[in-house]
Amino acid sequence: MDDIRKLIENWARAVHEGDLDQVTAQHTDDIVMFDVPPPYEGVRGIGAYRDTWPGFFEWQRSGAVFDIEELDVVAGADVAYAFAIARCADATDDSPVRLRLTFGLKMVDGQWRIAHEHHSFPSELSGEDEIRALGDL
Amino acid sequence: MDDIRKLIENWARAVHEGDLDQVTAQHTDDIVMFDVPPPYEGVRGIGAYRDTWPGFFEWQRSGAVFDIEELDVVAGADVAYAFAIARCADATDDSPVRLRLTFGLKMVDGQWRIAHEHHSFPSELSGEDEIRALGDL
Repeated sequence: MDDIRKLIENWARAVHEGDLDQVTAQHTDDIVMFDVPPPYEGVRGIGAYRDTWPGFFEWQRSGAVFDIEELDVVAGADVAYAFAIARCADATDDSPVRLRLTFGLKMVDGQWRIAHEHHSFPSELSGEDEIRALGDL
Repeated sequence: MDDIRKLIENWARAVHEGDLDQVTAQHTDDIVMFDVPPPYEGVRGIGAYRDTWPGFFEWQRSGAVFDIEELDVVAGADVAYAFAIARCADATDDSPVRLRLTFGLKMVDGQWRIAHEHHSFPSELSGEDEIRALGDL
């Protein structure tokens, strides 16, 4: 569990620092990410995963933070998952809104690898209103 | 993996049918759900989890669908995770928007139990615009 905690904390640091190689170093080639924005089917494969980051790094460099505030890890011998609450906002923003993160991990050749990520912000609309609003787009 | 697949398919059917006992039957007492709406810290504990469902069931009964279109399961001996794409919309809605679901599971007394859920819709705003919009609320 400590290995996984360290892996995710290093990933979050690299996300903030805009270090693409470190952000993508611990992933399987078939990573499936449900990112904050579409595509609806998820971001599939390490190449597509890499491509999601440059715009985000630019925003972080402009004065934003990416701080994991809580991290829970549940690990078996070769499969694990983890979930986290992160502050992901302009540094001057004191809003209570938080990013929610879930990770799925597999042991591959003796190393933990991230094979799934789910990133989302809560929606201020109710579930049904959200669905209707999205349906109207 | 077949057990987990069946468990999640039964859960989805119960979600559509509004069967609260079946929706909550396979969960740990300390379930943490990141639901589509807030709270930002997640819905914590089986009591709070139960309380999220009645309004959703009402909407499903009014003519909505909750259909898992794709389900991937990664299972070890006692820890597993799964992720799914679901159509969750009014039955007449042909929008491409999909609900993304991630599950974390643990083996407890010989039975798989869901200990974590993450539900979200993709945001049509870019990540940075979303963060700014949420920050302005």
